[in-house]
Amino acid sequence: MESWKTLSRKTILNHSKYLTVEEHVVELPDGRIIPDWPWVVTPDFINVVAVTVEGQFLFFRQTKYSLEGVSVAAVGGFLEPDEDPFEGAQRELLEETGYAAPDWTFLGRYSVDGNRGAGNAHFYLAQNAQRVAEIDADDLEEQELLLLSRAEVEAALDAGEFKLLPWTAVVALALRQI
Amino acid sequence: MESWKTLSRKTILNHSKYLTVEEHVVELPDGRIIPDWPWVVTPDFINVVAVTVEGQFLFFRQTKYSLEGVSVAAVGGFLEPDEDPFEGAQRELLEETGYAAPDWTFLGRYSVDGNRGAGNAHFYLAQNAQRVAEIDADDLEEQELLLLSRAEVEAALDAGEFKLLPWTAVVALALRQI
Repeated sequence: MESWKTLSRKTILNHSKYLTVEEHVVELPDGRIIPDWPWVVTPDFINVVAVTVEGQFLFFRQTKYSLEGVSVAAVGGFLEPDEDPFEGAQRELLEETGYAAPDWTFLGRYSVDGNRGAGNAHFYLAQNAQRVAEIDADDLEEQELLLLSRAEVEAALDAGEFKLLPWTAVVALALRQI
Repeated sequence: MESWKTLSRKTILNHSKYLTVEEHVVELPDGRIIPDWPWVVTPDFINVVAVTVEGQFLFFRQTKYSLEGVSVAAVGGFLEPDEDPFEGAQRELLEETGYAAPDWTFLGRYSVDGNRGAGNAHFYLAQNAQRVAEIDADDLEEQELLLLSRAEVEAALDAGEFKLLPWTAVVALALRQI
């Protein structure tokens, strides 16, 4: 079972550091050529499910542009260029919540869109988190920190209240580990 | 907690039915205006975790352009324009596996990208599936049908072998229901 080959690529939209679109000439294993396969370049990002020393889960109530209404949300953000995903996860946890954690579990790296790319999600579980600083988030959206019990997290997950794909994924994966 | 408002939108890349890029003028709750917010339009899609009457899980070994090497994959595909997601899920299960199922559970609708949109994932669990037809898939990738035990599914999930974000999400959510 062979992968497709990228024969050439050109940029067809250079919007910003958050979005570039390329067109690839792709060769399939049977020799067919696709001359105009679109490919979306967006930054990789991390999400973290953090649990405090008291066993409470750190989430947010917040809005996102793609979502209707308010959602329960996981810690997360884009990686800086060349930033190590684990360092990015530690940075985002600290910036967004003021918490730091000694115990980290990597929950995997997942491509967002199998056809178009659109970056990779890097997922982490952080345990025994403690408050060490003030919140220092630079996000455009309002965020309200929530401390939830495990039962509340499970209820929100099963009710679809983590409305964004990476949030529901990281929460479902993290709950398998603890 | 208010959502952002879309004041106007224009298409800046019209590649195909699979990808359009817009630029939105967006108003934040505090009155700030973002004049050039990029927004990605891709079709909604479904994924299905299907379990046979014998308790085996229907997955694939397959490649995807965005992935390195081979992945364990869930049933799934784009919805046709105006197609009902549940009907699309039943259609994709039949086309890709030749199986049909009487018992369906909706696992939620999730926006792929909180900033850029990029469509919605609609997730389903199908139980008591039985083979009723030949496979009739029109996908460009090779797919090999796998019948896995629950233990094999859990092992693959925890090892990160569902390499695509929607696949790992739908599997982790489905396992919570059965």
